[in-house]
Amino acid sequence: MLPVDLPDAVRDALLAPLVDHHCHGVRRDDLSRAQFELLISESRTPAPPGTTHFDTPLGAAIRRWCAPVLDLEPHVAPAVYLGRRQELGAGEVNRRLLQASGVVAFLVDTGLEAPEQLSTAEMGRHGGAAADEIVRLEQIEQDIAETAPVAVDYMDSLGEELAARAARAVGLKSIIAYRCGLDFDPSRPSRGSVIAAANRRLSDPRERLVDPILLRHLLWTAVDVARDRALPIQFHTGYGDTDLDLSRADPAQMTGFIRALQPLGVPVVLLHCYPFHRQAAYLSAVFPHVYVDVGLALTHTAGGSARILDELLELVPFHKQLFSSDCYGVAEGCHLGAVYFRRGMAAALARRIDSGEWNAADAARVAHMAGSGNARRVYRL
Amino acid sequence: MLPVDLPDAVRDALLAPLVDHHCHGVRRDDLSRAQFELLISESRTPAPPGTTHFDTPLGAAIRRWCAPVLDLEPHVAPAVYLGRRQELGAGEVNRRLLQASGVVAFLVDTGLEAPEQLSTAEMGRHGGAAADEIVRLEQIEQDIAETAPVAVDYMDSLGEELAARAARAVGLKSIIAYRCGLDFDPSRPSRGSVIAAANRRLSDPRERLVDPILLRHLLWTAVDVARDRALPIQFHTGYGDTDLDLSRADPAQMTGFIRALQPLGVPVVLLHCYPFHRQAAYLSAVFPHVYVDVGLALTHTAGGSARILDELLELVPFHKQLFSSDCYGVAEGCHLGAVYFRRGMAAALARRIDSGEWNAADAARVAHMAGSGNARRVYRL
Amino acid sequence: MLPVDLPDAVRDALLAPLVDHHCHGVRRDDLSRAQFELLISESRTPAPPGTTHFDTPLGAAIRRWCAPVLDLEPHVAPAVYLGRRQELGAGEVNRRLLQASGVVAFLVDTGLEAPEQLSTAEMGRHGGAAADEIVRLEQIEQDIAETAPVAVDYMDSLGEELAARAARAVGLKSIIAYRCGLDFDPSRPSRGSVIAAANRRLSDPRERLVDPILLRHLLWTAVDVARDRALPIQFHTGYGDTDLDLSRADPAQMTGFIRALQPLGVPVVLLHCYPFHRQAAYLSAVFPHVYVDVGLALTHTAGGSARILDELLELVPFHKQLFSSDCYGVAEGCHLGAVYFRRGMAAALARRIDSGEWNAADAARVAHMAGSGNARRVYRL
Repeated sequence: MLPVDLPDAVRDALLAPLVDHHCHGVRRDDLSRAQFELLISESRTPAPPGTTHFDTPLGAAIRRWCAPVLDLEPHVAPAVYLGRRQELGAGEVNRRLLQASGVVAFLVDTGLEAPEQLSTAEMGRHGGAAADEIVRLEQIEQDIAETAPVAVDYMDSLGEELAARAARAVGLKSIIAYRCGLDFDPSRPSRGSVIAAANRRLSDPRERLVDPILLRHLLWTAVDVARDRALPIQFHTGYGDTDLDLSRADPAQMTGFIRALQPLGVPVVLLHCYPFHRQAAYLSAVFPHVYVDVGLALTHTAGGSARILDELLELVPFHKQLFSSDCYGVAEGCHLGAVYFRRGMAAALARRIDSGEWNAADAARVAHMAGSGNARRVYRL
Repeated sequence: MLPVDLPDAVRDALLAPLVDHHCHGVRRDDLSRAQFELLISESRTPAPPGTTHFDTPLGAAIRRWCAPVLDLEPHVAPAVYLGRRQELGAGEVNRRLLQASGVVAFLVDTGLEAPEQLSTAEMGRHGGAAADEIVRLEQIEQDIAETAPVAVDYMDSLGEELAARAARAVGLKSIIAYRCGLDFDPSRPSRGSVIAAANRRLSDPRERLVDPILLRHLLWTAVDVARDRALPIQFHTGYGDTDLDLSRADPAQMTGFIRALQPLGVPVVLLHCYPFHRQAAYLSAVFPHVYVDVGLALTHTAGGSARILDELLELVPFHKQLFSSDCYGVAEGCHLGAVYFRRGMAAALARRIDSGEWNAADAARVAHMAGSGNARRVYRL
Repeated sequence: MLPVDLPDAVRDALLAPLVDHHCHGVRRDDLSRAQFELLISESRTPAPPGTTHFDTPLGAAIRRWCAPVLDLEPHVAPAVYLGRRQELGAGEVNRRLLQASGVVAFLVDTGLEAPEQLSTAEMGRHGGAAADEIVRLEQIEQDIAETAPVAVDYMDSLGEELAARAARAVGLKSIIAYRCGLDFDPSRPSRGSVIAAANRRLSDPRERLVDPILLRHLLWTAVDVARDRALPIQFHTGYGDTDLDLSRADPAQMTGFIRALQPLGVPVVLLHCYPFHRQAAYLSAVFPHVYVDVGLALTHTAGGSARILDELLELVPFHKQLFSSDCYGVAEGCHLGAVYFRRGMAAALARRIDSGEWNAADAARVAHMAGSGNARRVYRL
């Protein structure tokens, strides 16, 4: 699976079990081609007439790396791949792909949970791994907004529910990048402004929350909880779907907020980041509480992903890099995340060893820290 | 011409005729050194005293790749190159370089047309290729502004003239990035606000249009026309000359406008994009109607261009990538655009084949689609 | 020291003495491990518990490239390295590392001067090199603010002091990126607005200047001085410490100011730039008075730095690139800046020679210009 020769210690470190610190449940049901195509593209729409989402780096990667896990030759046609997927059934496909990833612990963002998706516990069982929960802030807020009668209850319930959910979780997650962009005012909003905004919100609670005041209130409430329980907060940054405005998803735009959190000691974990992963690595290099990984970008850039990891390694301190697959809906994402993390790291480490920059012991240590060691420390697994 | 060994099918696909979906007319007259230097730099000024615009990646590329087309050794001195150019005469030089590019169809932006430049038809004749027109919106607007007596005529004439010109063209082009930046308000301006702005405009119609209201009106008028005639709209983004503010030329800044166009089905073609080509590839991956190429960036980064194409390939769906040379003034730009497109794609495809990521059939198909297939489909050639 | 075989002329040009056009004084005293760690990270804080700033690309580079200069094996443990440093004493360590860098002239930003740092003259003596001063604008302003009794004196004294200091210097430097970001209003502020702002400022003169009006006034005063004396103005852009907001440090954000300076002929030198070095190279390509280097980024990205230089070379004209180490506090920065500049340029030039893009004479000339020739011309050394 590794694209280069490496000293044994480095090879072993790269092939050791990974902690996937950010993923979602995969679908338990058999999928039509149309359903499968929708789940392998962030476009959330079918490919234009006459084209297919298989004609992407990710599509090619599924044919290359997932086909053999289903006993097929590499590069089989999409129809053959999907036929075999159907033949084996979703349960077997999920077990094979999740286990092929060599992941020892899944940290599952449950914000997108649905009956047809594996639960956190099931992800662990199917993958032969441990599984813990990451609580998505905006999902909690939606639940509260739909049930709170008045603004004061909204505020109280939000704090209580977050604390209760956090008690069973290993981290929190914010998608504020999607809702108002990362260039938000970093200060904690006043109680008066939150009450006023909550009153507006409760008049139409089924709408998706986009009010910056309430989004900031949610975040600062989460900061209190995270601080109490020593939990990290994950942030979606960079690459996402069409709901996102990429020009407002650069993690450097939240420098003020990161600065405000520094004295509180709450770890900030930057997810995905692409194409702002250099900015993210910079933040992780200068702020002691910032961590970073390129998650989703590895899977979607696939055959072109090695450069992205190499660019991340330009600045990221060895103790700040994490691994995630961000798999969602299909287990292919999990396997490919692991494949491209290992291949990309292998290429990057080999280049540094071959040029004499790092010795093998350094390289092995970096591989271990990024693959699992850092996540165990940050999430206290 | 290709820098690596490739399976025959891939090699053939790369060497097949290209559709250059965005270029300008080249000069028909013989050029002095000063004139030539101005045309090979986006600075629009002479190089500082004691320096030369030949001391750039593009200058070196001319000496390397264009010299042999004029029967010279690679790497000849600039004076020798220009002497030979003079000796052959502009007509012969243009014919040789345009034909050496292996372009089968030129789509010519006629917005910068001048008597000393080849017309669209002449570009085709000299290049031994088909040639079609791309209508530059801001040029039409300028013509209308200089002749319309009052605001209502301005609005009516603009729509009529755009429709008339579009009837003979294969696409439209906007340079709104130059005029007010891509972070413009994506909504269609109200009729009242347009009338008011048009009245201001008509008081000084020879000025270059920079009013965001009229620029947006122009764009939305073009959207109506494009929709009626199923034409794509090209947008200058990224790298340009000193009139541009690069920090307002990131295509991700126009996400709101792209989103607004999605239900209308009007294709959006992002030109150049550098250094925001990863953002552009992202947009093409998540929005079904967005297409992308790195045009001008290939020619100007020359010997360093392969990485840029490779970065584009990280995310761009195979059915979304196009080729253009953006040649302007000198035919060298056309030849070099084709050279670096083919060399860069060759390197990128070879790497993916060699690492087992893609098979040769995939690679050949990608080369064909990016080189001509996608352009034929999008522009309905 | 070079990672690839190169024609003799290119090799000689790369190994020739460098002009380090931007650095700071290094510490004259022996440093504890804690002190040393603080000086090798832009975080300005200790590494998180259980981690070390040696676990960074820069830390690994010190063990790799500086250890042999202190007679140690490459890759020794941090404790061994620091023990040897202590054993030799700061004076000997500084002499060895500064001289190993092969720098023939240091241009020293004296804005951070402190008694425990080598002065400009001492940097020259220890390094066996010439040494000249770069005047930091914000330091001059701080001195004036703390002594001027009223606003008019403030304005007069600022102009006089800048002129006096500039008379003994080879350049000026602005850190406006740190103070209000590079997206500042490019126009010269009115005298009235400056007087009003100066009055506010003088009521609390020990505060660090952050008022955009006074920062712009400072800059335009510097422009007058620079124009009179034909001095370049350096700008911190991109990568810096936690005081910086990276999203406001993109040099393209100061396009308006650069445009305003073009007719005045004042050279603008963009420092560091990472991760906006492509934007910086673009500015240097289109504006005749803009120069660029990646300074600090080379040292901190260390084993990953070659790509950054290669990306800069995508667009930078050969007569626009400079070299700096930005060393500060520890002489390791100077040696590593030189090492990675030479290694990165070697790799980039070798690739262009091997692919036939440039000939050896071109490559040697580029190496010479970037290493020292351009700096001699721009700073009139």
